[in-house]
Amino acid sequence: MNYKMMGRITAFILLLEAAFMLPSILISLYCGDRTAAFSFILSTLITAGAALVLLWATRGADMKFRARDGMVCVAVDWIVLSVFGALPFRISGEIPRYIDALFEIVSGFTTTGASIVINVETMSKGILYWRSFSHWVGGMGVLVFLLAIVPLSGRNNGFTLHLLRAESPGPNVGKIVPRMRQTAMILYVLYIMLTVTNVLFLLLGGMPFFDAVCTAYGTAGTGGFGVKADSIAGYSPILQTICTVFMLLFGVNFTIYHLLIRREYREIRKDEELWAYLGIAALATAVISWNVTPSFPSVREAVHHAAFTVSSIMTTTGFCTVDYDKWPTLSKAIILTLMFVGASAGSTGGGFKVSRLLLTLKALRRNIHLILHPNRVQKVRINGQPVPEKVMDNVGSYLSAYVLIVIVSFLLISTDRNFTVESNFSAVMCCFNNIGPGLQQVGPSGNFSGYSDLAKLVLIMDMLLGRLEIFPILVLFSRTTWTRK
Amino acid sequence: MNYKMMGRITAFILLLEAAFMLPSILISLYCGDRTAAFSFILSTLITAGAALVLLWATRGADMKFRARDGMVCVAVDWIVLSVFGALPFRISGEIPRYIDALFEIVSGFTTTGASIVINVETMSKGILYWRSFSHWVGGMGVLVFLLAIVPLSGRNNGFTLHLLRAESPGPNVGKIVPRMRQTAMILYVLYIMLTVTNVLFLLLGGMPFFDAVCTAYGTAGTGGFGVKADSIAGYSPILQTICTVFMLLFGVNFTIYHLLIRREYREIRKDEELWAYLGIAALATAVISWNVTPSFPSVREAVHHAAFTVSSIMTTTGFCTVDYDKWPTLSKAIILTLMFVGASAGSTGGGFKVSRLLLTLKALRRNIHLILHPNRVQKVRINGQPVPEKVMDNVGSYLSAYVLIVIVSFLLISTDRNFTVESNFSAVMCCFNNIGPGLQQVGPSGNFSGYSDLAKLVLIMDMLLGRLEIFPILVLFSRTTWTRK
Repeated sequence: MNYKMMGRITAFILLLEAAFMLPSILISLYCGDRTAAFSFILSTLITAGAALVLLWATRGADMKFRARDGMVCVAVDWIVLSVFGALPFRISGEIPRYIDALFEIVSGFTTTGASIVINVETMSKGILYWRSFSHWVGGMGVLVFLLAIVPLSGRNNGFTLHLLRAESPGPNVGKIVPRMRQTAMILYVLYIMLTVTNVLFLLLGGMPFFDAVCTAYGTAGTGGFGVKADSIAGYSPILQTICTVFMLLFGVNFTIYHLLIRREYREIRKDEELWAYLGIAALATAVISWNVTPSFPSVREAVHHAAFTVSSIMTTTGFCTVDYDKWPTLSKAIILTLMFVGASAGSTGGGFKVSRLLLTLKALRRNIHLILHPNRVQKVRINGQPVPEKVMDNVGSYLSAYVLIVIVSFLLISTDRNFTVESNFSAVMCCFNNIGPGLQQVGPSGNFSGYSDLAKLVLIMDMLLGRLEIFPILVLFSRTTWTRK
Repeated sequence: MNYKMMGRITAFILLLEAAFMLPSILISLYCGDRTAAFSFILSTLITAGAALVLLWATRGADMKFRARDGMVCVAVDWIVLSVFGALPFRISGEIPRYIDALFEIVSGFTTTGASIVINVETMSKGILYWRSFSHWVGGMGVLVFLLAIVPLSGRNNGFTLHLLRAESPGPNVGKIVPRMRQTAMILYVLYIMLTVTNVLFLLLGGMPFFDAVCTAYGTAGTGGFGVKADSIAGYSPILQTICTVFMLLFGVNFTIYHLLIRREYREIRKDEELWAYLGIAALATAVISWNVTPSFPSVREAVHHAAFTVSSIMTTTGFCTVDYDKWPTLSKAIILTLMFVGASAGSTGGGFKVSRLLLTLKALRRNIHLILHPNRVQKVRINGQPVPEKVMDNVGSYLSAYVLIVIVSFLLISTDRNFTVESNFSAVMCCFNNIGPGLQQVGPSGNFSGYSDLAKLVLIMDMLLGRLEIFPILVLFSRTTWTRK
């Protein structure tokens, strides 16, 4: 493995992280929060210092880079990013224990939004900004960002491809344009444009500036950290509806927006994942609305909150307007299912992804056909294109890894005596699918602070496994990765 | 498709079922239960009558039979078997509604053991015998039995193979001997020998004769219907331990017993599934024992009940000595996991099967290696033998079908307002994996009678899907199956 190059990329990532902390310093100074300002300055210095040491140690690295190096690099960088990103929480004392600070920042970067903070409204503005901004950074991916701004690889397209593939969600990352660096740039331009639009809409709807920016970060990254103890419940219905729409928009494959700009409507019309995604969201909203109507004063309100919740859960954001844990069993069952389904590939959302679900269903159908006609070989098609067998194999393998990780994590966190089976199962589902709040004790009115350190570590791993789509993290645990050959 | 031949096999199955009802007539007459005796006589006549009509209608059928015919035939025959098998319950009035009677007999034949009966001790002996006997018949498979006793196919080995494959559990049914009919006979001889031994042990332990026979049926089929309201809790610890051991024995691949008789110890020693199965059972027992010790007067008692419960759940039997729903979260989490894992392939137990779990893990490991070394192709091996790629594909496909069925069933039965999320999830897991009792409202001290008819139908389908390992039933729903070509 090319350790030197990896170290160099890690150094760049740390420099970037140090730069990302600067706004929080300014906000803290502006608000007169001296402790917070000091903690951010110190964290920035430590992070930048580490980056410089690494840069010096890895001078003269060459650019040979393979798929496996890309995976390991992404996994290691996300862990390093989190280890340093937790510093401001810990140093400021606003989160007194380091493991909790780590949980919070991993939850931020992985756009999970699960929190160990009991009342966010007591936190300083700078810390709240850092918390929300981590969603935005993690949503589209920090390596994608690095690749978009730094011409690291010169003409080495494969190098960029490996990193981008490992960090971007979905079974098969489409190259928007042949040059990967340009793809990364287009993704970020679209991301910034959508985020700014979101902020503008929230401001027009009457949200204060700071809240609007933080809420937009949480929406854009499909993260779910908010700046209020009651999440989005305290804002006006108009603002909630704006969130519903934008959450849904950020759960769409960004390729669709690129097609939209290029006016390739035909391609959009035949995109199976897009229509399945919207169809599932519409169906779930309809059924939940019908199911919860008795507990709301009007049908309109039921639809309003059902749509918000479906959009929030399916895109794996995790904002709340109501405590859905108090809803009837059917609604809760649908919510648990949506947690698994997740958003679209190539979006900032997590979960299993709608396209993987489509491919799994198509593979199953093919298998039944194969039983009936053993000699007739069929290709699985999506959007009219045949899907390579390698992608099909990967989807199958992804599902088995997914199931095994859910089972093992569920068993491990069940060692905590104080949580119910339903809480534990939903906690795993919520962290692994990068959603945030779950059911019962970890539901919208509970939080994750009561878990033991072991359980928190397991959930931290789950969040990383979910965000990086399992394999980069699993590869870290394979002996073969670390043997020289 | 060869409908005529299928009809003929169905006729034979019905004749067999009519014959299976005869002991219940004798028992009912012996106990002086006139209504029960009458209901069994009437049911026998209806079943035998239907068989004769079918035999007449399908005279002159030819023997051409393909894999798909085998699947459809098995699926249809199991449904027909259940439709007629429910008659005695309904006619005697001991289960007043037909849907409930159908639920009960499907639960019997599929060796699930989930019951809608609130107090079994009020039922007549003949009905209780029929209930338990259905486990024994379904455990090894009624078509396997038919093939063992009737030389249906002459020299057509493929014909028998297709039926046997479709009815026997496990990813790859091993031919014990080259001739399939002989394989079926060996399986049944072993099955009868083990069952008789079980009865003898129970009698020696002091159990009344009727109870011993019924309990042995429930154990042999890994079913779980008992003749007491408190399942096995009322019997002495010795009898409970006998059950623990025999449940475990019936969860072993029957090929192992054949090897044992032929003294091929080396083959046994290298059987990975056997050791994984025993290892998981031992580990689960150890952890649960440690976890529940505080709630028992002594460590010995904790181990006793932990071993019984693990053996009962993992083999998918479903007998109970204690209400494990009251155990701590960790134990319940382990129980839920064991429900998924299930017993060995080629045993009478259900679930995902230990061998499939092993293959899934090995496939995952291979996939990680493939990421690291894309050009080095590796074969997955089990027991030292390379596993054909087709089997590997099937295991993957089985898992995706498994997950999708669990999700869809869970959503459908959640339409019942009165059950909790945990009850519903465990109800699906218990019916689909052919276990019986689940957690909370369907736990050891609850039952399934409160579900709506829709939910019962869904759970009936789940039991059949679980027992026949998904694809025979799914094939019934494929349009391709029913189009002539």
